[in-house]
This record gives sequence, C-alpha cells and structure tokens, in this order.
Amino acid sequence: MTIKTPSDARWLAAAARLALRGRPASSPNPAVGCLIVRNGRVVGRGWTQPGGRPHAEAMALEMAGDAATGADVYATLEPCAHQSPRGPACTDRLIEARPARVVIGQVDPDPRTAGQGIERLHAAGIEAVLLGCPHSAASLAGYLTRAAFGRPHVTLKLAMSLDGCIALADGTSQWITGEAARAHVHSRRALADAILVGGGTWRADSPRLDVRLPGLEDRSPARWVLTSQPIESAQTIAAPADIAAIPAQYLYVEGGAQAAASFLEADLVERLEIYRAPILIGDGLRALGGLNLAELAHAHGRWQPVETRQLGADTFEAFARTR
Amino acid sequence: MTIKTPSDARWLAAAARLALRGRPASSPNPAVGCLIVRNGRVVGRGWTQPGGRPHAEAMALEMAGDAATGADVYATLEPCAHQSPRGPACTDRLIEARPARVVIGQVDPDPRTAGQGIERLHAAGIEAVLLGCPHSAASLAGYLTRAAFGRPHVTLKLAMSLDGCIALADGTSQWITGEAARAHVHSRRALADAILVGGGTWRADSPRLDVRLPGLEDRSPARWVLTSQPIESAQTIAAPADIAAIPAQYLYVEGGAQAAASFLEADLVERLEIYRAPILIGDGLRALGGLNLAELAHAHGRWQPVETRQLGADTFEAFARTR
Repeated sequence: MTIKTPSDARWLAAAARLALRGRPASSPNPAVGCLIVRNGRVVGRGWTQPGGRPHAEAMALEMAGDAATGADVYATLEPCAHQSPRGPACTDRLIEARPARVVIGQVDPDPRTAGQGIERLHAAGIEAVLLGCPHSAASLAGYLTRAAFGRPHVTLKLAMSLDGCIALADGTSQWITGEAARAHVHSRRALADAILVGGGTWRADSPRLDVRLPGLEDRSPARWVLTSQPIESAQTIAAPADIAAIPAQYLYVEGGAQAAASFLEADLVERLEIYRAPILIGDGLRALGGLNLAELAHAHGRWQPVETRQLGADTFEAFARTR
Repeated sequence: MTIKTPSDARWLAAAARLALRGRPASSPNPAVGCLIVRNGRVVGRGWTQPGGRPHAEAMALEMAGDAATGADVYATLEPCAHQSPRGPACTDRLIEARPARVVIGQVDPDPRTAGQGIERLHAAGIEAVLLGCPHSAASLAGYLTRAAFGRPHVTLKLAMSLDGCIALADGTSQWITGEAARAHVHSRRALADAILVGGGTWRADSPRLDVRLPGLEDRSPARWVLTSQPIESAQTIAAPADIAAIPAQYLYVEGGAQAAASFLEADLVERLEIYRAPILIGDGLRALGGLNLAELAHAHGRWQPVETRQLGADTFEAFARTR
C-alpha cells in the first residue's frame, strides 16, 4: 500500500491546528504545536500546556520516545534555545533525540532564541528548515503581536442587523442574534485571555463577559473596561492605546459602538468578527460610532474576508486587517 | 446504456430556468418555460417571446414536430385555454400534438384559463399533472404577484458598507462597491421592466438607471420616481401604495434610504438584494431610513436567505420575504 504523505507545508498546517489547543492557557508563553512524523505516520504530537510548560516539543518527544530518532519534527515556532529553571531547552531535547529534520513555521522573536535554536540544531548535524508558514503565524498571532508591538492581538466583535444596527432607537437590543450565534461568541471568548467593553456598555448592561459553555466555564477571560472612571470587579484602561498594559496575548473587544469605533480609529484591530441577524431595523442604534474618515478611499483595502459560516438564521463573518 | 432521467420536479425546475430568458420582455404576458421530453431526451424547448408571443409551448411544439406525440411536456404555467386574435390556445395545440402527459408547475390565475387548460387536456385524453413547483412559482413571481395583488413584484436593492452605511456623513458615496458588483446590478436591472428611486436621489444624483452591459443596452427598464413633485424624463408615484399604477411585473427599487424605508414600512418588498463592500464607515449616511418598528420582535422572521455570492471584494446576498 502506498501512503500518500502531505507536504511539509501541510504537516505544519496540521501542527498549527494542534497549537490552537494551547490558546490562550499557554499565555504568556506562545501556543506552539508540534508533530513528529516517521514514514508518513504521526508518532508524536504536542502543544504548549497551561502555564507554558511542558512545551509542545517536549510533549511530542515524550510521546514519540525512540521513534523520534531519524523522524521529521514539525514545530510551528522555532524550538527554544535557552535553559530555564522549569526545564531544559527544546533544542537540547531535540539534539538528544536525533531526528533527521526539524521543519519550523516561524522564527521565535524572543531574543534568547531568535535564530539560535536553528543554529544549534545545524551545529549538531540536524537539518533545520525554516518554512515561513502562514498557518503557524496565524496560530501565534497573539504572541507575535505582543513581541512586535508590545500589546495584545485585538479581535473586535460586532453583532448587528443587516443594516448595521444593534438596537431599536429606544435601546431595546435583546435577541438581535439567535442562540447559535451567542454560543459561538462564548466559544470565541474562550480563545481570549482578556475581554473588554466600553464604560457605557459596562454601566448600562452589567455584562458577565464569561464563557457559559459546558466544560469551558473556567475559560472566562480577564475583564477590562475602557473608561476613565473607577469600576468594580474589572480592570480599566483609559484609551485604546493603553492596551499594552493588558497582560494578554488575545484581547476580545465586545463593544459597544463607541469603544468599537475608538479601537478602529486607533487602527488597533487585527480581526473583525461580525454576527448578522436577517433583520432590518432602519433608524436604530448603530453598531459603530464615528470613525472620523476624511475620505471614503481610507475605508477601502483594509479588510480581507477569511471565514464565513451560517449560525442558525444568522451569519458569522471574520475579516483580517490587511497590512 | 441506461439514461438516468431526472424526476418530473427536476424537468420543471429546468423549464423554470429556461423561463428566465423571457423575463421581463414577455410582459404583460407571463414568462413561461416549456420542455418536451421523449425517452429522457429534450426534443423541444421554448420560452415566452418578447411581447408575449409565441408562447413557450408553441415554440417548443414547433421545435419538437412529430416527436411531441407520446412525449412528456413540462410547462411552468398551465397552458392557456382561450383563443386570441394572435393565435390558437396552447391547449388546442397540445391536443393536436398528442403528447402522453403535460406536467404543469402552476395553475394560471388568468380567469380565461384558471384550470380550464388542465380540464380540456383531460377531456381530450391527455394526462395533465399539476405539480406545484416552487421554481415555477419563483420564475413567475411578477405575473403571479400582479394577478394576486394587482401590483408589481418588488425587489429592493441596497448597497452598503459592512456597518450599513451608503456614504460618508458629508454625502461622499462614490465607490462603496466595486466594478463586479456594479455590473451585477446592471444585470439585475435587465430583469425588471420598471425601476424606481426616491425623489431625493433623483434630484441629487440624476441617475441614469439604465443597463450598461454589452448586448443588453436595450433592456433598460422604465424609470419611475417616488415623489409628489413633477419630474422630467421619468414617471412618478406619490406613495409606495401607488405601485399598482406602474404597468410592470418586476419593479426594481434602488433607493435612496427614505424610498427604501417607505417600501419596507409598507411591507411591499418581496425580495431584498444586498451588496456589501468590506469597509467600515461608522457615522456615515445610513442605507435605510426609519421603519417605525414598535418592537424588535417585529423585525424577526421576515427574511429568508436565498442566494449569496462573492463579487470581487464585495458580497451579494438575496433574501426572500417569508409570508
């Protein structure tokens, strides 16, 4: 029987899907995925465990045992090159296990590694291939954003009618979207380590902002409010530019309209997630406040559709900020 | 060789697609489609010709010739039973051709036929089957709406940003959607026999409202404006309820926001067609004016998604009014 094996790019994409299991509990460590493949079969797999240890490679090597020798290792992020009180560097573990190749999705921007993991593997006679895998980059978005810009990756969620309203003019807003859409929102909250609403929404709705899905109750993100007023039972920032102070990789912004607009105006949104109910409201409250666009051309070329799905009667669409 | 033949329902659906070729030039006659099938092969096909004659069945019978005898005839609408100065009734033509069966999608509401076509086929010993085909009904929507309610079928088109705006607050609105979306709008105009905008849009934009697609330049619908002021080079109605006076089967309403809202508020829209550009505007001009909704529940359960497609960077979505 001929086993058709996927290419290196496909194995890395599979490792990137595996990495999602570590998000966001790995924080502040990156959520890495690792697959060890021998003769076209997976002999080891791992992802960063809660709190950051064990690392994905350590978990995968533990599973593979002797089968790692001569195998191909796929890691979404460059294996760490630095010793830590919490365990040996993954580079050292790999050199000891002696795989034939290590295929890597992204260089680790951590200055303690930053290419040295690849160098040390080479020096030890193990082929190290850097592939530049977009799926790896996407699965590490929070970690890479934090490393590059010193702030969390921001997802903005909007739930609205077909004509962009979130409520009647008098504020009535219950049941814009249906049950499936609301459950999906909770699953998205579970992928963030911080969640934020504006001060007006916090005071008007007292939102719980937690994850109410069976088995995921302990995944509720830390609550933040955009306000200059003191707030009980949540932390605050006074302006979107202050998000550097939020110790998170993934910040999920749930509104309201003014908070959403202020993050967009500051160009701090990497991902837009829109839930739309098949209803028309007309002159209701808008999903978005003012963006101070000087001209229409400035609105174009910013958002690339990356995902769409039907959720009961509602639609979900995700857009990535093009840079 | 075994030829797998589609069921009666599928042949009727195919006839309904054929019927679209007659829309809207058949007006005021219905745009009917007809297929004649013998041993699983199409031996005749026809659709209502411009001005209403020849009828679909006459065209299909002409093509089939002797092959119609003993064949199955699929007609989206009941064959007409009345003589006309413009030619014999299709029922008489069918009785003469002697097919084995006539499968019919919808009863003709015209009181001169209204079941008599089916009766006369039966009386002549030809099996006449009424199938109640939703594709036939959809392809005859303009004719059936006119017959049932004495007014055209109304499609409302909206082009907007992701957040439901049609322009910046200062009115700048060029290039919300892209070239593919605008060409699609022209192809939709070509399926209507009347087009309408509000008086404000007419005076502000002097829209041409014509079909600018190669080969379809002569398919521009008659222009109507919703206004109580006199207008040059277009006809007028003063209120949505006056559309009975528009001698058309398909009315395509292109806005602006107030005209769109007044048709929705009057519940005179059967089909909603939304073009969305992947842009956010915020506090721009809204796609819709006020709908005077007393409560949010009144907005729900009205629109069923029936079509979606990507047009370059933009999306097109059609919704049908659920009744």
